[in-house]
Amino acid sequence: MDELQEARERLVNGLGRISDFWGFGKIMGQLYGVLYLSPEAMTLDQMATELGVSKGNVSVNIRGLERLGMVHRSWRRGDRKDYYEAETDFWKIVRDIMKEREKREFDQALSVVQETLDTVRAIGQRAPSEEAQFMAERLARLREFFDTLDKLAQTFLALDELRLGALEKLRFGLKR
Amino acid sequence: MDELQEARERLVNGLGRISDFWGFGKIMGQLYGVLYLSPEAMTLDQMATELGVSKGNVSVNIRGLERLGMVHRSWRRGDRKDYYEAETDFWKIVRDIMKEREKREFDQALSVVQETLDTVRAIGQRAPSEEAQFMAERLARLREFFDTLDKLAQTFLALDELRLGALEKLRFGLKR
Repeated sequence: MDELQEARERLVNGLGRISDFWGFGKIMGQLYGVLYLSPEAMTLDQMATELGVSKGNVSVNIRGLERLGMVHRSWRRGDRKDYYEAETDFWKIVRDIMKEREKREFDQALSVVQETLDTVRAIGQRAPSEEAQFMAERLARLREFFDTLDKLAQTFLALDELRLGALEKLRFGLKR
Repeated sequence: MDELQEARERLVNGLGRISDFWGFGKIMGQLYGVLYLSPEAMTLDQMATELGVSKGNVSVNIRGLERLGMVHRSWRRGDRKDYYEAETDFWKIVRDIMKEREKREFDQALSVVQETLDTVRAIGQRAPSEEAQFMAERLARLREFFDTLDKLAQTFLALDELRLGALEKLRFGLKR
């Protein structure tokens, strides 16, 4: 077998294991690996052949990767098939997930916890009970944890912007 | 309906949505919510009744939570049933996942990428080709990304230890 193909398969299987371990399933990691190491965009059929799995299986998993911003779809004029390629900027993937996906979910989660805490505290004031006290304490700790995670994400994004800004300036300086 | 029960259900459903969104399934988040807001350890049967799902479904999902260190199992003398309670120290959960679970996977992932990169570079030196060049570049970028993630996790753990150390000292100081 082609030595490069052998190396490619080793990486693809490695990414499959990590992906499976984190609960996304083996195929999702393998698909990203196949696209990441392909110089050309690929069709669903090509990926199915490469991995030896059904086109339906590829299709489901590629949608998962699209939602995470890890692959992009493109079209070719006069060709009805969809083509896929890997997003190769890993920090962009992390950043986008933190900015969009995570942010929306976080805000929702935070407000559910806050609302429940408000309700439980109001109940506890009207009719004090050990149960209400217990729930209020646990909810307050959960809110504090979510708050801190949110601040960490915001700090990461702020630092990342500073770093990018600094790099841009450096490049601009070098050009002049 | 009991107002506190209503508040509890709102939080449980909120955690279910977040858990589902992140690919762990709704039940896993709901189960953690039920245990987190319960002052007593609970059996599989009690959790199944509380959520209105099968005991088998609860059993599968509780094992997932156990693997993540988010719930702990306990036994009672003369009682054959398993009891479960929530781990309530969120930073401990994050820390343990980073230290054990993630660390092992990371080391494996890093070495797969490094080995593949070495192989591809050796092939490229023996028989230079655009393909080998392309793969070596992509693999080098992937390794760099994994390296940085690893450093970030280590920095987080080091900062966390410093903070804990400082808190311990403070407590010790107050006691004297």
